[in-house]
Amino acid sequence: MLMDDMGWGDLGVYGNPEKETPNLDAMAADGMVLPDFYSANPLCSPSRAALLSGRLPIRNGFYTDNAHARNAYTPQNIAGGIPDSEILFPELLQKQGYRNKIIGKWHLGQQPHYHPLKHGFNEWFGAPNCHFGPYNNINTPNIPVYRDADMEAVTFLQKQASSQQPFLLYWAVDATHGPLYASRQFMDTSRRGRYGDAVRELDYGVGIILNQLKSLGLDNNTLVIFSSDNGAATYAKQKGGSNGPFLCGKETTFEGGMREPTIAWWPGKIKAGQVSHQLGSLMDLYTTIISLAGIEKPTDRIIDGIDLSATLFQNNIEDREIFYYRGDELMAVRMGIYKAHLWTWSNSIQEFHAGTDFCPGQIIEGVTTHDQTNYTAQPLLFNLGTDPGEKYKIKPESAEYKQVMPNIIAAVNKHKSELVKGDPQLNYCDSHLMNWAPPGCEKLGRCLKAVPSDRNLCTWPH
Amino acid sequence: MLMDDMGWGDLGVYGNPEKETPNLDAMAADGMVLPDFYSANPLCSPSRAALLSGRLPIRNGFYTDNAHARNAYTPQNIAGGIPDSEILFPELLQKQGYRNKIIGKWHLGQQPHYHPLKHGFNEWFGAPNCHFGPYNNINTPNIPVYRDADMEAVTFLQKQASSQQPFLLYWAVDATHGPLYASRQFMDTSRRGRYGDAVRELDYGVGIILNQLKSLGLDNNTLVIFSSDNGAATYAKQKGGSNGPFLCGKETTFEGGMREPTIAWWPGKIKAGQVSHQLGSLMDLYTTIISLAGIEKPTDRIIDGIDLSATLFQNNIEDREIFYYRGDELMAVRMGIYKAHLWTWSNSIQEFHAGTDFCPGQIIEGVTTHDQTNYTAQPLLFNLGTDPGEKYKIKPESAEYKQVMPNIIAAVNKHKSELVKGDPQLNYCDSHLMNWAPPGCEKLGRCLKAVPSDRNLCTWPH
Ligand SMILES: [Ca+2]
Ligand SMILES: [Ca+2]
Repeated sequence: MLMDDMGWGDLGVYGNPEKETPNLDAMAADGMVLPDFYSANPLCSPSRAALLSGRLPIRNGFYTDNAHARNAYTPQNIAGGIPDSEILFPELLQKQGYRNKIIGKWHLGQQPHYHPLKHGFNEWFGAPNCHFGPYNNINTPNIPVYRDADMEAVTFLQKQASSQQPFLLYWAVDATHGPLYASRQFMDTSRRGRYGDAVRELDYGVGIILNQLKSLGLDNNTLVIFSSDNGAATYAKQKGGSNGPFLCGKETTFEGGMREPTIAWWPGKIKAGQVSHQLGSLMDLYTTIISLAGIEKPTDRIIDGIDLSATLFQNNIEDREIFYYRGDELMAVRMGIYKAHLWTWSNSIQEFHAGTDFCPGQIIEGVTTHDQTNYTAQPLLFNLGTDPGEKYKIKPESAEYKQVMPNIIAAVNKHKSELVKGDPQLNYCDSHLMNWAPPGCEKLGRCLKAVPSDRNLCTWPH
Repeated sequence: MLMDDMGWGDLGVYGNPEKETPNLDAMAADGMVLPDFYSANPLCSPSRAALLSGRLPIRNGFYTDNAHARNAYTPQNIAGGIPDSEILFPELLQKQGYRNKIIGKWHLGQQPHYHPLKHGFNEWFGAPNCHFGPYNNINTPNIPVYRDADMEAVTFLQKQASSQQPFLLYWAVDATHGPLYASRQFMDTSRRGRYGDAVRELDYGVGIILNQLKSLGLDNNTLVIFSSDNGAATYAKQKGGSNGPFLCGKETTFEGGMREPTIAWWPGKIKAGQVSHQLGSLMDLYTTIISLAGIEKPTDRIIDGIDLSATLFQNNIEDREIFYYRGDELMAVRMGIYKAHLWTWSNSIQEFHAGTDFCPGQIIEGVTTHDQTNYTAQPLLFNLGTDPGEKYKIKPESAEYKQVMPNIIAAVNKHKSELVKGDPQLNYCDSHLMNWAPPGCEKLGRCLKAVPSDRNLCTWPH
């Protein structure tokens, strides 16, 4: 269950003051909470590409090198998408006899050869793009809105239970990504406005799905993971989610951008009421899931995800690094309780003055910088245990800094020396490629004529 | 159980990322969480005076009018203390046959006639002052440090169980107030540094006490409330606690200063696993507790606390205001989900430049002001549901503002028109009054000679 722009601080169990997620809180009480779990990128499509490929966006191609350290996502007119050379874990499961369904947002390429049915999924309910909206914009045609994501899941689970075929359900709902939406039943029911309405509806859907697993007798044989693709969009102000005590949000490599509200649930296998401070990544789901399915991981490439089985089932802790990338640049690294920033950037001062603020109300000198600030010669070091908000730099002349930093530098150097960058998929845009005539447009009389091809370098503001 | 400077965000159940409070989290799961619960003041001694008297500090005298909107607390050389004219709820319980014990910090006056044994307590284990430390400072004599606050409680509970006499235990431990301390067993066990060690020890103590209640068979007949006297001391940086997603901390009337991590527990009476968004105040404990003990509340004065019985037992919600005072000034008011600031102030620009920051990393224009800013003509309005961080002012020209503000103004006017200020207790200091020769000093050969009396106006920087 992968949420969209939902923040670490949006769940009751993760400290949201309105505590409007009873089903997720119950899921957490029945399973394991992972407060130190990260996405591989602070933006939708690179994060999702990393989850499915088990590899950092810099390896799988979900980045741009048109400009330094720029976030890049997958709009409709992007020329790239998930490369055929990437081995997605649904593909591996499929070969092992699993039936796989994606419900919701794909966002790994608009052209037909990038679509989920070509990359390991048997069923697809959703759209290839970022978001769903009315098909009413002649300039950037969109996809008809859909609803009932939970019922779609329930039907799939029932079918799989009766066929006794193993399955993967990738529930990639997007209601918490702007423009926000909620069904009538949930409209104006939250103390948090429309964003809260969406959270409440998704929480309700989680409850429906977990209960369906129980009533089908599948609960003791199904691993369920809940997380989010990136931090809350703090720039959306009251219309975005909450990153709790963390700094900034979506698009940044501060904790608010990449720390995700994560819960693992498997009654009978994962003991109830646990907390694990394992440093986790969405990419670990790749390795963990194929391991549980008895599949060997690919040996011809680096897989960044690690196998979390021992964390989930024995509450073991394994040392590992978390790498925070923005576009083509490694911005920060976490090892243990420490995080080092090699580069800082919130957004440009021009964007900021034009009204886009990634860190509303938060200003930390030398940290939330409006230019790309290079600290590679002497990284900024923070202790996330005593300082989760990344406010208090550990002095370079301190014993603590001198003890910690060499290990971090060594890990960075090792990572960089072994890095083989993928072919950047998000460098070129071409409006010709947009979805001018999606399936069903004939019935609505809304098919549009594609514009001529005009391939150009994509420029990304952040 | 009243914590000292512990923040809303310090408990696992309230979203602390390190989740090091298993006993409090279990207490919450077995009881009711109250995320919208407030202290009556952002500072130790006025908050405690309000709790015990059921009345705002402006009424009970725990303020100063030497300077506008200045916080004032109760150092050793303060001349004032809890007035005899205040009727503390322990006094009422005592008359009803209860045996009352305070363990920990009193902080309502240093002179003997202000001490707890004169104000409703039968037993006293702790100190009259703010904090405990070694008796080794010749300039400001202090009180010997103590430990084993949980065992002291256990012994009391056992005695009360065997005597079958009803009791009040006021467990006012102070380990999370700087200077921080923890017993050897808990030293360096937290991921949050010494502050976390202290939290872990207190959490352990909570577990000890609740288990003792259970094993004595008192749990079904005892209401236990956990809260804190004011928000986390954000100015202490990594050595202070966490106010989660809220603005600023101790000493301020922003949410970080006064919203408290509150749990109510009474197996068999309070249903497990509940959340209540009742606006609550520590002063409500006064009214609720005497109501449960079958005692009428005083009718010759205004009691600010309301009876929360229907909230605790039926999860009812009652409309009420929360008044945020700083010294002699009403700074802000909350009604429902809305909060209006009549005045803003963090601290003076001089103090700020000298290194004291009440809002580290948080700067909100026109809100976290360094001068006392008067908004009484047009209060700043925030929706704490969509905007818990008090970041986004609701525009005065909006329909929302026009709908909400008249009710708030009316409540403010009513409050002010009915207000009879108490005699300010914190206006005069006199070093003569300090604790020069505390009990036991003879044995240590450490008794000091009091300085001559020199009564002067106390000046408070904040
Ligand atoms: Ca997203
Ligand atoms: Ca305090």
